[in-house]
Amino acid sequence: MTKKLVAEFIGTFWLVLGGCGSAVLACSFPEFGIGFTGVALAFGLTVLTMAFAIGHISGCHLNPAVSIGLCVGGRFSAKELIPYIISQVLGGMLAAYVLYTIASGKEGFVAGGFAANGFGEHSPGGYSMSAVILCEIVMTFMFLIIILGSTDERAPKGLAPVAIGLGLTLIHLISIPVSNTSVNPARSTSQVLFADAWAVQQLWVFWVAPIVGAVLAGLVYKGFFEKKE
Amino acid sequence: MTKKLVAEFIGTFWLVLGGCGSAVLACSFPEFGIGFTGVALAFGLTVLTMAFAIGHISGCHLNPAVSIGLCVGGRFSAKELIPYIISQVLGGMLAAYVLYTIASGKEGFVAGGFAANGFGEHSPGGYSMSAVILCEIVMTFMFLIIILGSTDERAPKGLAPVAIGLGLTLIHLISIPVSNTSVNPARSTSQVLFADAWAVQQLWVFWVAPIVGAVLAGLVYKGFFEKKE
Amino acid sequence: MTKKLVAEFIGTFWLVLGGCGSAVLACSFPEFGIGFTGVALAFGLTVLTMAFAIGHISGCHLNPAVSIGLCVGGRFSAKELIPYIISQVLGGMLAAYVLYTIASGKEGFVAGGFAANGFGEHSPGGYSMSAVILCEIVMTFMFLIIILGSTDERAPKGLAPVAIGLGLTLIHLISIPVSNTSVNPARSTSQVLFADAWAVQQLWVFWVAPIVGAVLAGLVYKGFFEKKE
Amino acid sequence: MTKKLVAEFIGTFWLVLGGCGSAVLACSFPEFGIGFTGVALAFGLTVLTMAFAIGHISGCHLNPAVSIGLCVGGRFSAKELIPYIISQVLGGMLAAYVLYTIASGKEGFVAGGFAANGFGEHSPGGYSMSAVILCEIVMTFMFLIIILGSTDERAPKGLAPVAIGLGLTLIHLISIPVSNTSVNPARSTSQVLFADAWAVQQLWVFWVAPIVGAVLAGLVYKGFFEKKE
Repeated sequence: MTKKLVAEFIGTFWLVLGGCGSAVLACSFPEFGIGFTGVALAFGLTVLTMAFAIGHISGCHLNPAVSIGLCVGGRFSAKELIPYIISQVLGGMLAAYVLYTIASGKEGFVAGGFAANGFGEHSPGGYSMSAVILCEIVMTFMFLIIILGSTDERAPKGLAPVAIGLGLTLIHLISIPVSNTSVNPARSTSQVLFADAWAVQQLWVFWVAPIVGAVLAGLVYKGFFEKKE
Repeated sequence: MTKKLVAEFIGTFWLVLGGCGSAVLACSFPEFGIGFTGVALAFGLTVLTMAFAIGHISGCHLNPAVSIGLCVGGRFSAKELIPYIISQVLGGMLAAYVLYTIASGKEGFVAGGFAANGFGEHSPGGYSMSAVILCEIVMTFMFLIIILGSTDERAPKGLAPVAIGLGLTLIHLISIPVSNTSVNPARSTSQVLFADAWAVQQLWVFWVAPIVGAVLAGLVYKGFFEKKE
Repeated sequence: MTKKLVAEFIGTFWLVLGGCGSAVLACSFPEFGIGFTGVALAFGLTVLTMAFAIGHISGCHLNPAVSIGLCVGGRFSAKELIPYIISQVLGGMLAAYVLYTIASGKEGFVAGGFAANGFGEHSPGGYSMSAVILCEIVMTFMFLIIILGSTDERAPKGLAPVAIGLGLTLIHLISIPVSNTSVNPARSTSQVLFADAWAVQQLWVFWVAPIVGAVLAGLVYKGFFEKKE
Repeated sequence: MTKKLVAEFIGTFWLVLGGCGSAVLACSFPEFGIGFTGVALAFGLTVLTMAFAIGHISGCHLNPAVSIGLCVGGRFSAKELIPYIISQVLGGMLAAYVLYTIASGKEGFVAGGFAANGFGEHSPGGYSMSAVILCEIVMTFMFLIIILGSTDERAPKGLAPVAIGLGLTLIHLISIPVSNTSVNPARSTSQVLFADAWAVQQLWVFWVAPIVGAVLAGLVYKGFFEKKE
């Protein structure tokens, strides 16, 4: 069990450091910045790389919504749920701290919104709370369908990390303008440590909406697609 | 059969939401937008992720032209054709509705052409109807060659989703400027629900041309490349 | 044999249509164009998709230099060399014709250099003839090392298309500014049909340099890395 | 043993030529340049392609920090360490020479910082020495976790090249603005041959930090994740 929790801790550390790090450090670098496409790629590759590296240890959830969705879908034991979520949140927080330390090594750095998720005036594109909630529910729903489907025993062996990682890239390609893309409460929580005060006030949305999407996906996959014994 | 139709419905929902969604929400985001490269990647990744997730359930066509081409090529049963196409069109329509709802959560949003396909003055680059038709025929022809070839039993096992998904990305990298890229009548049809009136008038091209290309590919693959028993 | 030649014809058709097509139609599209990164991706994906689709039929060379390098490396029969090369050149020419027809569907289109390769004032970045020759030799050398290595029986099974396709993307990421990237005499030849007169005058470089690089790679791989029976 | 050293030589040659080459030749090409995203992709693809091509020969380290980390992690023999590192450094140097020769084929070319790594005023984004050291340690740490995890016998077979290559892309997406990204002492050393004098003065950081990160990763992976016999 320790082994699994260390793996989830390191994996979520990487998801936040890599994904949010690319956003904070490289997205808007003058002239040659990586833009939303680069950030989308970075988020996806954190999951792709970790799924190959630690998938065989902890299953590589790195995300409370994923753990809950897998639980509902019958693929993950409920009694491991709380320890997994705690490890994920702590790993994300350490990443936020390391990222903040590196980013502060540049003169004049101001955290501002950091890479927090938000709605209304804090949505990158100014999307309303209801649009953000709908978007996060649907994106997390589809993320879990990808996870449940590509790790199904009938799917091609060994390639789920590619499907899941690039699936997260795709989700970011669509929804960064809407909510800055969460689909992951641990990722959202990590950023409020250093972001301006609005981030913590809006944080509840990025726990509720992803979990709702994940639970629905677990039910749908189990109900329609699971192999009948 | 229900299982398959639900899978095609959800898969085509994802194709349209992800592909057209990235175009409507993120392509032209000021400064950091994902551009045509990001949209091309998004379309391809919808198919890559779904092919891993539901390929083992329905075959993951997500596209009436693909279903028809596979039928001509001898890989898909004619009696499932109509139900598949209906599911695909309905899944795409739901996606258009969800996308419209999210996009409307930004003040001042106007659907305009949405992510519809068009020719003449409605081609992104102003290409004529005949250029658009030629382009769509050739692109769909090659898409089906990729699908038929990579799912051939002699091809590497389990990797067809990568070939087909990235094949769709490639097709978009070439042809977004010409026709906004269809190669998929369900994708084109979904957008006319919310786009300006020209879109529905030009829709026939994006049924006829992809289907012609797909049928030709089915005949060529069967004629030249199919393993002779 | 017919089957193989048809496959090489269609495959090289796709390489030129997709790679040069993305350059001519989409690279410099105002505001949202795909740039060199998109063109590099497109070239690589033509090979990745075809290697999955027709690799099991013809080996998917799509390139006279590749056929020659594989021949020197002991992986391809010398007596199939000439027919393969003829199919590749003809497939590329048909693609150039189709591309020219589509591109002409936009008012005011001028072929100019089309997507031809060149040196001196016709190098995208103004690189000298000797720099272009050195670059093309080294790039083709490494391309063949990737091909020979990833199709070695000791390499992971079934993944050579990914290595080779993305290897071609990499080569373009480096060398488009130098020579517009050839490493493929069939690709270069196809473009001179419609490009301005300088292209045919400089064409010899894009036969000689790639073939020199390919032959050297065949010798090095065979000499150092081939499994000793 | 010669076979292995030739493979490491050619592989590191490719890493430096491809990665640094894309940065020097294509990153800032007017209008259509590949930017940091393209450079990140290029670095990653050098490793992905070589891991498929020569992984079966030498293990494809291409990096002294990787060789040391694998040694600490119990996956590589200490007595091969020095010869490997020498081959890597020499391969990188030849690449720097070839790259300099090609780049000089453009009138007015000035090497400047070439693609060297630096801190303080020589960091692309002006990051302090301590931020650069922290960043390089953490990035190399995670790079080795990816390598050790994805080549673990419990991980999916044959796909480590994808995980490791795209992992290096990810590392560049995050950290080019900070240190120009090293995580590889051979890559850093190669560039000081042609870069301005500051590069050699700052070089020690890009030996020490990556090696520290790699050693830590070797200890962590062995301590927590290694299968217990």
